[in-house]
Amino acid sequence: MWNKVAVVGAGLIKFGELFDQSYEQMAAGAFKAASEAVDFGFDPSLVDAAFVATQRGTLWGQEGVGGNTVPSAIGLSGIPCTRIENACPSGSDAFRVGAMAVASGVHDVVLVIGVEKMRDKSTEEGLLARAAAGHPIYTRGETAPVLFAPFATRHMHEFGTTREMLAHVAVKNHHNGALDPYAHFQDEITVEQVLESPPVCHPLHLLDCCPQTDGAAAAILVPAERAAEFTDKPVYVGGFGVATDHPYLHEKSTFVGLPATVAASQRAYEMAGLGPSDVDMAEVHDCFTITEILDIEDLGFVEKGKGGQAVLDGETQLGGRIPINTSGGLLAKGHPIGATVVAQLTECWWQLREEAGERQVAIRNGIALQHNVGGRGSGVSVVNILTRPVT
Amino acid sequence: MWNKVAVVGAGLIKFGELFDQSYEQMAAGAFKAASEAVDFGFDPSLVDAAFVATQRGTLWGQEGVGGNTVPSAIGLSGIPCTRIENACPSGSDAFRVGAMAVASGVHDVVLVIGVEKMRDKSTEEGLLARAAAGHPIYTRGETAPVLFAPFATRHMHEFGTTREMLAHVAVKNHHNGALDPYAHFQDEITVEQVLESPPVCHPLHLLDCCPQTDGAAAAILVPAERAAEFTDKPVYVGGFGVATDHPYLHEKSTFVGLPATVAASQRAYEMAGLGPSDVDMAEVHDCFTITEILDIEDLGFVEKGKGGQAVLDGETQLGGRIPINTSGGLLAKGHPIGATVVAQLTECWWQLREEAGERQVAIRNGIALQHNVGGRGSGVSVVNILTRPVT
Repeated sequence: MWNKVAVVGAGLIKFGELFDQSYEQMAAGAFKAASEAVDFGFDPSLVDAAFVATQRGTLWGQEGVGGNTVPSAIGLSGIPCTRIENACPSGSDAFRVGAMAVASGVHDVVLVIGVEKMRDKSTEEGLLARAAAGHPIYTRGETAPVLFAPFATRHMHEFGTTREMLAHVAVKNHHNGALDPYAHFQDEITVEQVLESPPVCHPLHLLDCCPQTDGAAAAILVPAERAAEFTDKPVYVGGFGVATDHPYLHEKSTFVGLPATVAASQRAYEMAGLGPSDVDMAEVHDCFTITEILDIEDLGFVEKGKGGQAVLDGETQLGGRIPINTSGGLLAKGHPIGATVVAQLTECWWQLREEAGERQVAIRNGIALQHNVGGRGSGVSVVNILTRPVT
Repeated sequence: MWNKVAVVGAGLIKFGELFDQSYEQMAAGAFKAASEAVDFGFDPSLVDAAFVATQRGTLWGQEGVGGNTVPSAIGLSGIPCTRIENACPSGSDAFRVGAMAVASGVHDVVLVIGVEKMRDKSTEEGLLARAAAGHPIYTRGETAPVLFAPFATRHMHEFGTTREMLAHVAVKNHHNGALDPYAHFQDEITVEQVLESPPVCHPLHLLDCCPQTDGAAAAILVPAERAAEFTDKPVYVGGFGVATDHPYLHEKSTFVGLPATVAASQRAYEMAGLGPSDVDMAEVHDCFTITEILDIEDLGFVEKGKGGQAVLDGETQLGGRIPINTSGGLLAKGHPIGATVVAQLTECWWQLREEAGERQVAIRNGIALQHNVGGRGSGVSVVNILTRPVT
């Protein structure tokens, strides 16, 4: 395992429609949460560099400012602060870059913040509509559901995956979200509600889709050898991987999987020196129900084509063989782009430290995995592996 | 000196109004230029990660895609690719992050590309107009010249700096640009032309301002111990520094200097173990003529308040004590935001390798410095120091 960098604090603000909080206020709330999670206390002035994940500050009055307004807003004006953008995996990539900054020896205490304002504009004017505007020739009309729906129909065609299987992903994640005080949605839903919700793009209906959510989350990274100054329950960065794919639908080599996820996870597994069967739990990118099924296959948790059945069989629920999206996932916790991943990593951090309350899973090997895919649906994937030595 | 990372290739495309090239074509052109500059040849498949600096892909049909379309466009689909955004210093920060990725041991051969489309939209709709939109309460009407003009008037008030001194910055940089085949503008101008050009925001006139330019530039980084595989004229990353400042004008502590530049350069000097008197030449952020005067003072090349006189005295021209912006700078070469810095670094690389042709300066210590400031004028600064052992 790599394990050169330790995560000594992580936290988030409650996700939701946060019209009452500015971008900077959300960032400050996340930093406060992560600082307060440091076991032996945390002096903010220790932070010597920050990496801020925001996909589309541009749309929310942050034009030309990037992440560099954040230090001033959190009382740390002066520190280096870099905005990392990599579509939906922006936060996972900020975490990876932060880890490399620590491992390089250049920075010691690094703050990673993910923050995104999604709800201050109408859906038509908003981030996801613009995210799909993309290439002027190929992509008009391609909203996010339109980019993922062909993967669902093809998966159904080749493997017999059903709408009921998709619906069970949503039911499971909303169940988990109901146990997560930070989730945007905290109500149980039924398979029937998913099946009967309004159609968006066949075969995806409204409850097959994640909501638009405001939120922020933060993590504090230090060199592994300094972890003991901050905590006696350190969590380490075991490895990570990033992979790109051709971004446009007409260039895709398959519609039953996301090759970027396969490549990113292989790189992360190799760096961490382990495989999917070692993973205790995972937070994966369930922007749509079909995406979670693709994810658990592409990450190696389930054989290709068997993802839907595995969900039906309860393999991915709390207490199952490989619990997936214990936090509620994007479907229930929400998907404030830059913040999504840092919140996923916070859930992994809590699970590895056995602090996840009603959502706690069995920690056998001390390995948690976080995954994203994004960029016109599947142009890029990032996987981070967190580890905690099992005693 | 840090010197853990070597720059083995650097290059750019000719800057200008590149209506005939897409974002991806510009990126591909820059990668080709950097590859062809590698002395012993370069196999593109060696690249194992890329960092792309683009400030505002969002405005140019790249919404939701970030840098992750670049690998596909340059024939390297699959590699990790991260977009770095940090206002005007986006490119310098991408270079720093790329260097840390190499130094961390995670990546070996890293490509840094800066690319920006500035001219495909009207000025009113375009990047710089939006960049100034910023905070909804404080900043309406604050265009970039409006953000920098108060520094000029205050510098004039405190130190007797004159419009003629400012004009000499533009004349010098256009002279250098006339010698640079990659510059957007390649004509000499006179002090009278600057003084008589249309007023923009007192005391800045049109020729005190950099143009809006399309462009792309790239650099190839490898671990220092692998440099000999690629070149017998290696250039190293000697050090770097980043600093933020409060972003809004009403929060500024001074209007005769940019504290972020002072802090960033101190960090870079400390990391490189040297000081301003060791620097052979520098590419600095001359978005406006006054900015170059602030820069050379804040970087320590000239005493505070004496920058205007130093320019008048020829200290910063080719052949002067400390040649500044030998490439033509932002004023003549142009300022395609993400690309600007990587092009500045390319000029430093050429100068250190003594390949700058008519623009070549005397290399005494083998030290070149690259500087940016940006983010609502002066919210962030990045300094990179390149070194080449003098034989």
